[in-house]
Amino acid sequence: MKESKKNALEVLSEQYVGLFDDHLRKLLEIRNGIPVRLAESMDYSLLAGGKRLRPALCLAAAERCGVAPEKALPMAVAIEFIHTASLIHDDLPCMDNDDLRRGMPTNHKVFGESLALIAGDALLIWAFGHALSHLPDMGIPYDRVARASALLAEASGPMGMCGGQTLDTDTASRRLEEGFVYSIAAAKTAALIRVSVVSGAILGDISDTDLRCYYDYGTHLGLAFQIVDDILDVTASRDELGKTPHKDEAQDKLTFVSAYGLERAKSLAIEESEEAMRALEELFPEGDLLMDLASFLAERTF
Amino acid sequence: MKESKKNALEVLSEQYVGLFDDHLRKLLEIRNGIPVRLAESMDYSLLAGGKRLRPALCLAAAERCGVAPEKALPMAVAIEFIHTASLIHDDLPCMDNDDLRRGMPTNHKVFGESLALIAGDALLIWAFGHALSHLPDMGIPYDRVARASALLAEASGPMGMCGGQTLDTDTASRRLEEGFVYSIAAAKTAALIRVSVVSGAILGDISDTDLRCYYDYGTHLGLAFQIVDDILDVTASRDELGKTPHKDEAQDKLTFVSAYGLERAKSLAIEESEEAMRALEELFPEGDLLMDLASFLAERTF
Repeated sequence: MKESKKNALEVLSEQYVGLFDDHLRKLLEIRNGIPVRLAESMDYSLLAGGKRLRPALCLAAAERCGVAPEKALPMAVAIEFIHTASLIHDDLPCMDNDDLRRGMPTNHKVFGESLALIAGDALLIWAFGHALSHLPDMGIPYDRVARASALLAEASGPMGMCGGQTLDTDTASRRLEEGFVYSIAAAKTAALIRVSVVSGAILGDISDTDLRCYYDYGTHLGLAFQIVDDILDVTASRDELGKTPHKDEAQDKLTFVSAYGLERAKSLAIEESEEAMRALEELFPEGDLLMDLASFLAERTF
Repeated sequence: MKESKKNALEVLSEQYVGLFDDHLRKLLEIRNGIPVRLAESMDYSLLAGGKRLRPALCLAAAERCGVAPEKALPMAVAIEFIHTASLIHDDLPCMDNDDLRRGMPTNHKVFGESLALIAGDALLIWAFGHALSHLPDMGIPYDRVARASALLAEASGPMGMCGGQTLDTDTASRRLEEGFVYSIAAAKTAALIRVSVVSGAILGDISDTDLRCYYDYGTHLGLAFQIVDDILDVTASRDELGKTPHKDEAQDKLTFVSAYGLERAKSLAIEESEEAMRALEELFPEGDLLMDLASFLAERTF
């Protein structure tokens, strides 16, 4: 019998996601002082079957920079908290108004708008509290803890993810210039994917030159990821997506498909994926799982 | 001519708020990479005439622990960012649905719900990014930076302010036991006021015993502040409050007035204020502005 070869996402998942999920579940069992309903609301979205791409990237980058994945877990948790908060808030009626996420009712459909709002806020804040309290316990020096956490804030705050959400949803912020869709994607999506990689790497003893390679890798991987997401919104079914398809078009969103057309968007995804691989070539002349991952992500659209 | 004596809040303001406001204004002029409309929305609420009690407490505590107020500014900014974010989100239609804040239209009335939501998120995240990036520039050692920022997260996250907001707004979380209103106030209000004091103190070289005094002071000051707030909601006019009065009653909120009646609430405010003063007695046997402040806050209700 022939075993089918695992793809890079499956390998990444095998190596890091089990570790991450076990840790997260244990962490969520400790609820000192968190009101029960708030804990339930946060848990619901944290355990809703996300692929854990961002935490896996963080743990993988940390390991490649000499930090055992176990020691980077608080950083990975912080990133997943922020990502989950952004999904809860994005789904709210005043934002994308979506009823379905990963095949399940969205947070506010289950817990109400007010608790969903608070749960998102709580996760954003807890992210930093968790990283800042627990990375030092893992023996990570305080200067690296502070630097990695500051980078996470930069990537997710007004200059990063929140800035991108503004460009994406606020019609008064929309600009007509060529390439504006890149500005949205760079801030909304690529910044958090990049910092997943960079914040893991920076926990180790890494030179600025090497860090730059991970930075560029993360940027291009993140852009490829968003382009593919835009393509799948058009080409995939509700079952394949686990969320409502054709939402972008219905909401008149500016996407890589609306800006460049489907075929050109597919080439752009491949270009970004190749740039991502190229960024790591010097560090890994024999190749690396992170490079395979970039290649695999771009292939998802075919 | 006889000059009228300044009250403790005016003295605190004179000593710290000018410094803070100048710093904040300069900081907001630098907008690298923040979308214009998002910056406008954040600025609107940040510059809406808050009293800056929390940042002033932070700077005052830092100074009393040997840290020049100028060096503690990034921590004070972080605290005000989080406080402002909580006001923006609290005013949203799915929360308190308030149109007026500090005598001006609330953020979502000016910028729309979706941008108000994002502006709050952005401020929560930026708070940590700002403290973590700029406190080290001020020469504060990394371990103190991380510890103070972690305490800020604990005070404002699911175990603190967000937890308190849950107890305050989520009717399914309400409990009937005596003293539940204290649980709400401790988490919703007192935690952030306490951490304003504690996070300033901890930037200096302070013993655990002395830190405990500031911790207890902050707790009781915060409780006194919330009790007074509940009383003023009943007794003050729209002009005096700068926001809609009698909101608590209209929203069937559990307050110190609804739980204990107006007269008993007034005594409780005085009790908490006296506890706050007592907490600092050993550190300041000759008295201190922070002790006068506790006394003054409780007097506001008469």
